[in-house]
Amino acid sequence: MKRVSAGFLPPIALDSGRKVPIYRQLYEWFRRAILAGQLRPGQRVPSTRSLAAELGVSRIPVSSAYEQLHAEGYFETFVGAGTCVARSIPDDALKPAAGKMTGKTAGKILRSSRQSPDSKAMRKVSRRVALMQMPAQTWSNQLVAFRVSLPALEHFPTRVWSHLVNRHSRRPTRQLMAYGDAKGYRPLREAIAEYLGAVRAVRCEPSQVLVTTGSQQGLQLSAQVLLDANEGVWIEEPGYPGARQALTMAGAKLVPVPVDHEGLNVAEGIRRAPGAHAVYITPSHQYPLGVTMSATRRMLLLQWAMRSGAWIIEDDYDSEYRLGGRPIASLQGLDTDARVIYVGTFSKVMFPALRLGYVVVPGDLAEAFSTARDAADQFSSTLYQAAMTDFIREGHFARHIRKMRMLYLQRRAALVEAIHKRMEPKLEVIGAEAGMHLTALLPPGVSDVAISRRAAEMGISAMPLSSCYANPPRRGGLILGYGGTDARQIQDGIRKLAMCI
Amino acid sequence: MKRVSAGFLPPIALDSGRKVPIYRQLYEWFRRAILAGQLRPGQRVPSTRSLAAELGVSRIPVSSAYEQLHAEGYFETFVGAGTCVARSIPDDALKPAAGKMTGKTAGKILRSSRQSPDSKAMRKVSRRVALMQMPAQTWSNQLVAFRVSLPALEHFPTRVWSHLVNRHSRRPTRQLMAYGDAKGYRPLREAIAEYLGAVRAVRCEPSQVLVTTGSQQGLQLSAQVLLDANEGVWIEEPGYPGARQALTMAGAKLVPVPVDHEGLNVAEGIRRAPGAHAVYITPSHQYPLGVTMSATRRMLLLQWAMRSGAWIIEDDYDSEYRLGGRPIASLQGLDTDARVIYVGTFSKVMFPALRLGYVVVPGDLAEAFSTARDAADQFSSTLYQAAMTDFIREGHFARHIRKMRMLYLQRRAALVEAIHKRMEPKLEVIGAEAGMHLTALLPPGVSDVAISRRAAEMGISAMPLSSCYANPPRRGGLILGYGGTDARQIQDGIRKLAMCI
Repeated sequence: MKRVSAGFLPPIALDSGRKVPIYRQLYEWFRRAILAGQLRPGQRVPSTRSLAAELGVSRIPVSSAYEQLHAEGYFETFVGAGTCVARSIPDDALKPAAGKMTGKTAGKILRSSRQSPDSKAMRKVSRRVALMQMPAQTWSNQLVAFRVSLPALEHFPTRVWSHLVNRHSRRPTRQLMAYGDAKGYRPLREAIAEYLGAVRAVRCEPSQVLVTTGSQQGLQLSAQVLLDANEGVWIEEPGYPGARQALTMAGAKLVPVPVDHEGLNVAEGIRRAPGAHAVYITPSHQYPLGVTMSATRRMLLLQWAMRSGAWIIEDDYDSEYRLGGRPIASLQGLDTDARVIYVGTFSKVMFPALRLGYVVVPGDLAEAFSTARDAADQFSSTLYQAAMTDFIREGHFARHIRKMRMLYLQRRAALVEAIHKRMEPKLEVIGAEAGMHLTALLPPGVSDVAISRRAAEMGISAMPLSSCYANPPRRGGLILGYGGTDARQIQDGIRKLAMCI
Repeated sequence: MKRVSAGFLPPIALDSGRKVPIYRQLYEWFRRAILAGQLRPGQRVPSTRSLAAELGVSRIPVSSAYEQLHAEGYFETFVGAGTCVARSIPDDALKPAAGKMTGKTAGKILRSSRQSPDSKAMRKVSRRVALMQMPAQTWSNQLVAFRVSLPALEHFPTRVWSHLVNRHSRRPTRQLMAYGDAKGYRPLREAIAEYLGAVRAVRCEPSQVLVTTGSQQGLQLSAQVLLDANEGVWIEEPGYPGARQALTMAGAKLVPVPVDHEGLNVAEGIRRAPGAHAVYITPSHQYPLGVTMSATRRMLLLQWAMRSGAWIIEDDYDSEYRLGGRPIASLQGLDTDARVIYVGTFSKVMFPALRLGYVVVPGDLAEAFSTARDAADQFSSTLYQAAMTDFIREGHFARHIRKMRMLYLQRRAALVEAIHKRMEPKLEVIGAEAGMHLTALLPPGVSDVAISRRAAEMGISAMPLSSCYANPPRRGGLILGYGGTDARQIQDGIRKLAMCI
């Protein structure tokens, strides 16, 4: 570390032992000195030759620093006057920063300014984000027993998948590396359209399919395309918190509509908000109660939507895993007025970090969705889309679903049996035999939040049912995932859970 | 194909040659017949035994179909009455669908309903999306000469990269496959914070870094977190269309502020909209003009933001490729009031389909951004984040940047020379020596849109400068990318372009 006084300049500290090159240290020093007011506008600075000599360094780094300071407008050169601090840096621009930029005080300023109420108003974020601050999460999000939405990752055919990924990443085409289509990779859209037509009775052309980053992006795009700020949207009560987030983010006005044993109570929705612009719904396997929406209600809903011009956002998040009976056909397939936006995901059938899902939209909305996707984040990783296409086309997808359906059936049975044995009547299992989680009601008056907190402390994840409600529920419960929880963990987890209640 | 009349039922057509299983054909037939009103609520249907006999099929598929129809509420069973069409399907729910659901008429209904003005109002999308309908794109988006934002993909170290991807995908940890952190993979956030601190003088902790899906998502999140509907935001005129899209999507009011040779005219911005809530800016290398913002303007901007409580969205989209002189330090590094949101991307240094970028946000906004990301699409592919971390940590990133900087310097020189030789004075190159594209002005009165269209017909991409303006510009120009355009393509492309003008 050498300190040199450069004529009329404040002392310049250069450290030749530091990794930062000399030109950069000089540049930084000048910039700080100018911003801190130690060097004033119009003030002359030494020539590169004399500064280099004074500092005992080569002239090259000094010239580099000066060049840079010129390029950024901190220095000016005038014929006859040599190099000066730029005169156009206004005095008042420098004063607020004076004395603050030197050293490492910026962090302190930020901290102190955050404490004063005045500057709090100065650090305002949007209302939509302020509204989103969810209640503190009391349940564990670790990869532990009963974590909701987690598939059986240990059974995923990793070798097959990494082989397919490698096939494309080893010698990628330019198309796979460059900017892709906002609507998605065409061969994947074709494969999805075929799959949904065959398995979910979804009626669509590939041109109506958009590949998304999981179902959450499908919800976000739907909210942004369909709803303006303060427009009403029915949501299921209780319902999926991720949908509430996406709709809140779009500034929509959420209208909770109760769910009973037939699914969403459509008549009640019409009573509460007949002019709502959209409805969010999980008809195949209601989240979180597990109810299947009845045919009557489906027809009533479609009829209301057709009459009022409302859009229906159908979230078919886990219908691959209908465990008892045949899969329930989609609402989209019943829709004669092209009012349904069908949202699905590969996160549960494949693995969450794949980040691929899809929406099927009415033909006349395809462009609007594509525009919204382009504005949001342009497109999804093309390499994964290509690998996913192969995974479907080469039969691995159907095979994996079949295998997992059997596994989840066993896991569900093991969980239900363990609950029956150890926890009845404290826990009452409800909902259809589907998906990768079940909901169990607690006795009236027992706080599911308190239990979820205790369970988290014991290393198990028990999502409280109340977290899915917009308004306080009459009865609490626990949402228990069994997809990623094996037989041993189920036994152990229920033993621990019994201790919590 | 056999047609059987099942007693009092309309004829059922079963096709044993079709891939669709019998139970599914039966289920579909009943569903359609009920919805079309051919079977009425309360109407009795044959027993599974008698229907199976009549159709000449095994009883198993008939039972399956009936089960399914029960599960979905189309059928009811009453003791003594056998199986009936559900009586709770309301008459009026069925009428609008009557006669429409049979056959393939749904498409036609959609098409015809779209033509009537009444139903157009019934198919309203949000204002923000309606506002986004951009002018028709007249330039080529193919991977041809002068395509903007396209890097030299043929020089990307594909083998190294696919090796790193394979390293993680062959034996992925559960953490890499499961749900990831909305803020990003921690080791990557650390690597980004170090990189930006060293190279861009960005001052941040890893906790302030969020991994995004390219810079576009950084812009989207910034818009959503910082701006409410109808709040003002300065945008550069001309400026990056992707930023306009993201801000429009958030419902913000865009205020175009002219750019001159010192960058954004801050005084003019203050005159036009002193109370704007944010500003979008590309200070290192203005998009598309290529100007570097002067120190004076930087200070004025920071001062205005500090005084008025406005946020600054700094898009540092291509500063890795400063070709002449040293890189210009970021605005973020000058900011003493934590008002700058710094947006960057790996799309240009790596390849666009990687879909990884980042934002650096003030510490007190990190949670809000994370919440917004969670609501948008949860998180980015963890596998790619892990591979990207290795790519940086193992030195490949710095090496590739150095190599590409030399290459782009050569390509730029070749393009500038070709323009000088063949196209002066028809094209006038402007802007600093940086990035992967340059802007060239056309003579006054020449339509850049017309030229871009002609160029597209000849198989080259010439983005018109006017597409970056909110208001009609005084002079048109062309934005020519040279990152993904090699020496031969440059010569050939300029020869063709000369023919267009």
